Amino acid sequence: MRGTGDDAAVVRARGLAVTSVDAVVQDVHFRLGGGGLSPYEVGARALASALSDLAAMGAEPGEAYAVLGIPAAFSQDSAVELVAGMRGVARTAGTSILGGDVVAAPALFVAVTVVGWADAEHELIGRDGARPGDVVGITGELGGAAATLAVAEGRAPGSAAGAPAGEIALRLREGRALAAAGAHAMIDLSDGIATDAAHLGRASGVSVCIDVNALPVHPEAERAAIAAGRPPWWLAATGGEDYELCFCVAPRDRGRAERAVAGVGATAVTWVGEVASGPAGAVLSDERGAVAGIEGYEHRW
Amino acid sequence: MRGTGDDAAVVRARGLAVTSVDAVVQDVHFRLGGGGLSPYEVGARALASALSDLAAMGAEPGEAYAVLGIPAAFSQDSAVELVAGMRGVARTAGTSILGGDVVAAPALFVAVTVVGWADAEHELIGRDGARPGDVVGITGELGGAAATLAVAEGRAPGSAAGAPAGEIALRLREGRALAAAGAHAMIDLSDGIATDAAHLGRASGVSVCIDVNALPVHPEAERAAIAAGRPPWWLAATGGEDYELCFCVAPRDRGRAERAVAGVGATAVTWVGEVASGPAGAVLSDERGAVAGIEGYEHRW
Repeated sequence: MRGTGDDAAVVRARGLAVTSVDAVVQDVHFRLGGGGLSPYEVGARALASALSDLAAMGAEPGEAYAVLGIPAAFSQDSAVELVAGMRGVARTAGTSILGGDVVAAPALFVAVTVVGWADAEHELIGRDGARPGDVVGITGELGGAAATLAVAEGRAPGSAAGAPAGEIALRLREGRALAAAGAHAMIDLSDGIATDAAHLGRASGVSVCIDVNALPVHPEAERAAIAAGRPPWWLAATGGEDYELCFCVAPRDRGRAERAVAGVGATAVTWVGEVASGPAGAVLSDERGAVAGIEGYEHRW
Repeated sequence: MRGTGDDAAVVRARGLAVTSVDAVVQDVHFRLGGGGLSPYEVGARALASALSDLAAMGAEPGEAYAVLGIPAAFSQDSAVELVAGMRGVARTAGTSILGGDVVAAPALFVAVTVVGWADAEHELIGRDGARPGDVVGITGELGGAAATLAVAEGRAPGSAAGAPAGEIALRLREGRALAAAGAHAMIDLSDGIATDAAHLGRASGVSVCIDVNALPVHPEAERAAIAAGRPPWWLAATGGEDYELCFCVAPRDRGRAERAVAGVGATAVTWVGEVASGPAGAVLSDERGAVAGIEGYEHRW
């Protein structure tokens, strides 16, 4: 590997390169300070968001490259803190930040490119392979990030200290394990399952049917939803940034998928629905039938 | 290769991946419209600038990924034009734009990641291998981009129609040929040779000595420099964005380097100096001795 003094970083490759690009902009995707994010959180989430795409593909994380657009009012200490946030996530994920570019900009932005690797195509998984009859599983719990935001913005009771830690749990090992366990399709829940299940359904040409009452709701998300006069599953279905995985497997592979996820960590799988032939997209239902108007949640921190 | 509907793009890899990231921001690196750039030019130059880093390493261009930050006032037609500019350069360079992200932003920005490939380390070249005694060569002519800018901004005579076409000549094949011909060090002239030769000298721990009177000056650059009351080589030494290559080879490999470049296109090599032991950096001299105060030209379109 050549030093970073060169124009480009050089790394030894494996069979397949898996590349994802993600960008966030101040006052579009997040706000800084006050009820918003710290520079550390901005850096951590920008990298986590890109790495989560690799998790959803079943790729092994390799290298990361970051472009920072820094406004005049953003102090050098803040920039150092932002990079520390990226490095923290990189360390957890086993990836290295190998290069990038720092430019002046009117508002803070972070554009991250992550490269993952796989030895062969069958190790990887897309959004487009779901089949009618598949069952739909989810890793971990949903709504924690949205609950943190609701508390920070004063829309739900709780104190900053009482809110979920906002620790970013990436499902990189779980993603690879699920791909190896025969999952047909997978997506990370960056925009919330109401939106992301529809992406998966459209890419696969199937109808992904989710029972909102079966969703694994984070306790804080349930509390915040009820305080806001919404059903308990509301934030879990519509909140983004949880970075859990939603996947589809044949019913006979249900146990295999559970064991695959349990084999790499402490995360559990929850079964939340099934795949049907029908209009390509997703249908979320509660005990009274289909819930309308919750897709299209705007991606926001 | 998987479809672009997925979270990440998948490509078959070769031995070594060479990755470069570059970003430009409106009103920092370029201005739009009027005396500034068209959306087409912004897109073209953003990609060219990143690809030029691959040329300087001797890597074969592979894939490109782009993040576009789009302000509200930037029309959809303009965005389409910007992407067309990127596609035009991609086509010429033999690269594919495989993915990216489009986000709202307070000012236009373009962040480009390019990935190049090589089969083995010896095919690649850095900035850090120049040795005392080497001769310093340059591909093509310098100052054309700076002359175009000077005319557009009314600082030099000429009309928009009379200015150089602003066509971006990337030296990807020349870079690979020079690496194969035994060049010790190479850099692309994105910031102008006054700045870039110093980068190369510092990385190599040598003094790169350039005779400014030997520089291959673009005819329009000579005209614009003289009109501005500067020596004829001024814009060629200080102007950026030419994307020509500056390289160092052993004197005995001079002919080999010339043949290597001639073998892949119509570009000529000009010998402009030599490498000495001495303070790490670059010294530009004219007939009266060292020229002071021209390094540190600010990268600007």
